[in-house]
Amino acid sequence: MSSAHPQCAAEIVDLRSDTVTLPTDAMFEAMRSAPLGDDSRDGDPTVRALEQKAADLAGKTAALFVPSGTMGNLLAMLAHGGRGGEVFSDAGAHLFNSEIGSVVTVAGLVPRPIPSHRGAMQEEPLAQAISATASAGRPRPALIWMETTHNGAGGAVLPLAHMARVHALGRSNGIAVHVDGARLFNAAVALGGSAQQIAAHADSLMFCVSKGLSAPIGSLLVGDAALIAQARAFRRFIGGNMRQAGVIAAAGLVALNSMIARLRDDHEAAQRLARGLAWLDPALAEPGHVQTNILRIDTSGSAQSAAEWASRLKAHDILVQASGASQLRLVTHRHIDRAAVERTLAAFAAVAPKA
Amino acid sequence: MSSAHPQCAAEIVDLRSDTVTLPTDAMFEAMRSAPLGDDSRDGDPTVRALEQKAADLAGKTAALFVPSGTMGNLLAMLAHGGRGGEVFSDAGAHLFNSEIGSVVTVAGLVPRPIPSHRGAMQEEPLAQAISATASAGRPRPALIWMETTHNGAGGAVLPLAHMARVHALGRSNGIAVHVDGARLFNAAVALGGSAQQIAAHADSLMFCVSKGLSAPIGSLLVGDAALIAQARAFRRFIGGNMRQAGVIAAAGLVALNSMIARLRDDHEAAQRLARGLAWLDPALAEPGHVQTNILRIDTSGSAQSAAEWASRLKAHDILVQASGASQLRLVTHRHIDRAAVERTLAAFAAVAPKA
Amino acid sequence: MSSAHPQCAAEIVDLRSDTVTLPTDAMFEAMRSAPLGDDSRDGDPTVRALEQKAADLAGKTAALFVPSGTMGNLLAMLAHGGRGGEVFSDAGAHLFNSEIGSVVTVAGLVPRPIPSHRGAMQEEPLAQAISATASAGRPRPALIWMETTHNGAGGAVLPLAHMARVHALGRSNGIAVHVDGARLFNAAVALGGSAQQIAAHADSLMFCVSKGLSAPIGSLLVGDAALIAQARAFRRFIGGNMRQAGVIAAAGLVALNSMIARLRDDHEAAQRLARGLAWLDPALAEPGHVQTNILRIDTSGSAQSAAEWASRLKAHDILVQASGASQLRLVTHRHIDRAAVERTLAAFAAVAPKA
Amino acid sequence: MSSAHPQCAAEIVDLRSDTVTLPTDAMFEAMRSAPLGDDSRDGDPTVRALEQKAADLAGKTAALFVPSGTMGNLLAMLAHGGRGGEVFSDAGAHLFNSEIGSVVTVAGLVPRPIPSHRGAMQEEPLAQAISATASAGRPRPALIWMETTHNGAGGAVLPLAHMARVHALGRSNGIAVHVDGARLFNAAVALGGSAQQIAAHADSLMFCVSKGLSAPIGSLLVGDAALIAQARAFRRFIGGNMRQAGVIAAAGLVALNSMIARLRDDHEAAQRLARGLAWLDPALAEPGHVQTNILRIDTSGSAQSAAEWASRLKAHDILVQASGASQLRLVTHRHIDRAAVERTLAAFAAVAPKA
Repeated sequence: MSSAHPQCAAEIVDLRSDTVTLPTDAMFEAMRSAPLGDDSRDGDPTVRALEQKAADLAGKTAALFVPSGTMGNLLAMLAHGGRGGEVFSDAGAHLFNSEIGSVVTVAGLVPRPIPSHRGAMQEEPLAQAISATASAGRPRPALIWMETTHNGAGGAVLPLAHMARVHALGRSNGIAVHVDGARLFNAAVALGGSAQQIAAHADSLMFCVSKGLSAPIGSLLVGDAALIAQARAFRRFIGGNMRQAGVIAAAGLVALNSMIARLRDDHEAAQRLARGLAWLDPALAEPGHVQTNILRIDTSGSAQSAAEWASRLKAHDILVQASGASQLRLVTHRHIDRAAVERTLAAFAAVAPKA
Repeated sequence: MSSAHPQCAAEIVDLRSDTVTLPTDAMFEAMRSAPLGDDSRDGDPTVRALEQKAADLAGKTAALFVPSGTMGNLLAMLAHGGRGGEVFSDAGAHLFNSEIGSVVTVAGLVPRPIPSHRGAMQEEPLAQAISATASAGRPRPALIWMETTHNGAGGAVLPLAHMARVHALGRSNGIAVHVDGARLFNAAVALGGSAQQIAAHADSLMFCVSKGLSAPIGSLLVGDAALIAQARAFRRFIGGNMRQAGVIAAAGLVALNSMIARLRDDHEAAQRLARGLAWLDPALAEPGHVQTNILRIDTSGSAQSAAEWASRLKAHDILVQASGASQLRLVTHRHIDRAAVERTLAAFAAVAPKA
Repeated sequence: MSSAHPQCAAEIVDLRSDTVTLPTDAMFEAMRSAPLGDDSRDGDPTVRALEQKAADLAGKTAALFVPSGTMGNLLAMLAHGGRGGEVFSDAGAHLFNSEIGSVVTVAGLVPRPIPSHRGAMQEEPLAQAISATASAGRPRPALIWMETTHNGAGGAVLPLAHMARVHALGRSNGIAVHVDGARLFNAAVALGGSAQQIAAHADSLMFCVSKGLSAPIGSLLVGDAALIAQARAFRRFIGGNMRQAGVIAAAGLVALNSMIARLRDDHEAAQRLARGLAWLDPALAEPGHVQTNILRIDTSGSAQSAAEWASRLKAHDILVQASGASQLRLVTHRHIDRAAVERTLAAFAAVAPKA
Repeated sequence: MSSAHPQCAAEIVDLRSDTVTLPTDAMFEAMRSAPLGDDSRDGDPTVRALEQKAADLAGKTAALFVPSGTMGNLLAMLAHGGRGGEVFSDAGAHLFNSEIGSVVTVAGLVPRPIPSHRGAMQEEPLAQAISATASAGRPRPALIWMETTHNGAGGAVLPLAHMARVHALGRSNGIAVHVDGARLFNAAVALGGSAQQIAAHADSLMFCVSKGLSAPIGSLLVGDAALIAQARAFRRFIGGNMRQAGVIAAAGLVALNSMIARLRDDHEAAQRLARGLAWLDPALAEPGHVQTNILRIDTSGSAQSAAEWASRLKAHDILVQASGASQLRLVTHRHIDRAAVERTLAAFAAVAPKA
């Protein structure tokens, strides 16, 4: 754990999110030495290299570097067009919960939540909703939206076969499919596959080089050249163009070149946490559901609220995120080593109500 | 001139914009050592320090760090509200020419260009336009918008007395006043005054730490706390939130702490260029109009188009920007030293049509 | 029942909505003789008279005539401003179900559904949601939205004391309160009170002269003069300005002058239906819940879906609206006389599954 | 002239616009007897008949009835999609002057004015602007927009060959072409041709049954079925759906069935006015430029402002519209008979400055 992290003095274990990860030394060195240009003018060579790398990894023809995953998702909505149409996703999607302002106020799309199971929309209700839209005299559907790994569903990985069927449904209805892959490489690692296998089922896809990959800033939107040209045009409208963006793209390149494989460590840490918590109280965690680096802990069986759990754990220097009244979210990442896992389990044991 | 600049091998003089400036060594060192946090979560301490510094310099209570000047301007439009109302500025404003997509498509404001002189709106037509809006049954006016220094008007500095009168006009009509101060400190230096004196006539103001101040990325929006809270909320909607943004904010702090005074050098370089060009051909430049680091060269007296001038200068390794059919824009900055000025003048002499 | 109604040949009983009501003879005569003007230019005297009448009835200073209730509601959202902010209403609100495209795509407001009981938002969750918005760093709340009578809640009338408390909550938080009073006069009649008593708890209110009042076209938005001036300005933006609009406003005046008191008849018809259906099967209807002219019939106790009920009733020339899988909506109105009620009950008896 | 018209007591000659025309007796009779339905539910038979008639006249497959020309134009923008893209039209277009709020705030299109001659965009600059948009990294162009007859250009009729070339340019660039034909039938009559010949060069077209055709309310948007389905969906979003809209559609049917041919009379009245004014002072009017029912009178040669002319003419009971500092607009219509023309010429003679 880096001593530079302000919230992470030696004794703090921060499991609230993998967004708290700090840049690596290799990233700082790359930032220092990267060739730079004005990315709003001629282009920046390091940004171009990152965009090329991203497109290659995803098996797409083009990519766009943006300062956040939210912006990548927003630009997908703007670039696909279809304002006034509906965007179909599951009710627990990050898009509908944390990015609803982008959807509604900026993109002007109508949210249409579809019943889901572990982050995957149920396909029959999805197909019915698409048909209903047409027959109800609403504007043409705008987008089908999947999220993998799925934050709200405890880091669940969408099955590739499900993604393929949803993509086919989109194609047969002339509706583009976007994948919010903020944690795309966690999904790829968990599947034992490649990002490209996932992106094959998307007309556009966003992934982050921050989060588990530890770059300080940035995300990539990938797709075909025409779509990315539209996204690039709209990026200017929302102020997403940066100047010597190579300073941060350089860290993103390090992330893509050397940080993907280690996500496996985060998944193992999550498993250790899940098993330890289930051993403490089987109602708290279901190790079989933990596929990647996110655990959703169910505190509903205890008399304490999630906020109380979080507060008591904090007294032990363990930071977790309360989510609703009876759920804790724990996210493992590069700063959560074996000792941190042990301390976390000890803290849970200390604060758990005695049977 | 840094050898790292891809467009700036030893022989290239790039006068197209001050946005091509590269970070200084001090900036890179600051980026390496800055305390970091997750600015989308608890906040990043370096970002907070930069925002505090920006607010102090402008004499406002709050500030918001954003990845571009366009975003700062857009967030001002969104935060002030007033969608559907008119934004009054001069027809040559950067807002109406380069950021019209933000104005129209994202903010939903109606552009209302006002006749101007050297970047300053004529006050009587402005007052009439405001009255007309009310009486014509249009939505309430949204914003009055000034730009200083004024890009389209050759880096002109708005007189403080003019700004004060426009601000008073806004206040008396209940209309907020925003200042696009992308090159605010060039204006302050030229006035021999402070940013605060300028910002005193604005309800909100955006300035860049990129451009002449040489930070790689970023701008600040300043205003009162309530306005900045709104801007911060809308920043999330457009994907402007970043994670360990301290890595770039650190460079911005260096820019504000140590790069302002040197803008005087850029203004002197611009004066030398203007006088040299006027000596070559008085129709090309008017040194008395060059107040800061931008020169607008009038090529209408020659048989060559502006594009042809730019192309011939490029053959001499001098890059300038053609603007319309008969205007060149030259911008001085940290990489334009005395030798670069001399080579530029020599190149102009070489390509100028012989009398 | 008018023989002119194309869907209402002598034998058809159309209970799908009170929007099917036809203009009265008095309305047609008024349309023929009304003084007319160009309402997009100087104003139309009959429109002005209707707007004055509407403002008076609601106890507001101004009113605006629009071609639909949806437009009146939309203009309220646009005129109050606050784009990007949240609009708080109950999840079953007509706004969130049938007008979501206006909310999201045109007004750009974020829907925030609040738990409710019989159409009335629960006040504690509402207060919490307002607080949460502020503390979560979202844009300022935009609007609080009530609906009375409440379509989705079976024509329920919001208690005046509830409305007063919600209005006070809005005022104390600086949030405007709008009332969707599409069936305002049904509410007033049911309360044994006046429209003014209801409108006293609203900063703006929309009501229809179509629906039970039987005018062919039109609704009124009422509020204070500044708000209505904004709404009038935005009406032009969305193409709501009409020319000799007095031809339809004339019918609206007849509606307000002579059609309000007779809504009592519709409520009595609804009661007779409710009691008859409850006598047939107590699970179908709860007469105590029928306050105005709308009945929500619960078919969940039967083996037939709502669509099947509707289809079988149609075979008896009784038209009702299926709403979801197990609900029928019946709406009484001017064309539903005593005989129509009897025939409806007979048809229900004929199609109801035998116990 | 109908004595019912409030601004048209026997002695008033109202030349400000053809929007002041009153419904005919035949229209009132049709309004009284039209079969009606709920156009927001099952459809209204009279509306359907009007839409069919409109589609047939324009040679398109579908049509949509709306309460105003502005709404028809707005729905075309929304239905074609392309938000964020540019709409190309001439700087004097009604769209850019009177409907800019629809363009900008509701449709979110970026206005791109093209140099023009008598209402017709110059084709070379138009082609260049389209190319520039692509190469400048802006979003895909949204729409090409023509207006015939052209209000700002004194009722000028676009040549069919010009329209055909613009349409071809749109097609070859994949950009839809919309025609604002608020006074479509004036154009058709002036060309001695049909509406269909004009509409052949448009992917969508709006025309009014109010204005010279004298219906009280309404316009039609025509196009292919898919486009009109989208427009119909967006009409609900902006509150353009009406209930028993047949009461006004009935008048629209009379307008289309019996009022088109008589527009020739209005054109003759305009010619008589133009010739009379030119005889009075050749600087005032150019009869050769008056093609339809609109005259633009140039008062710049006189010491009086346009507003002063209008005011003095009003003292003679002649109403005209001042447009800018030195232009009057006169529009002939059904209520401007031979005597009204003579009185107008006499009034001009009386108020004209003596040489």
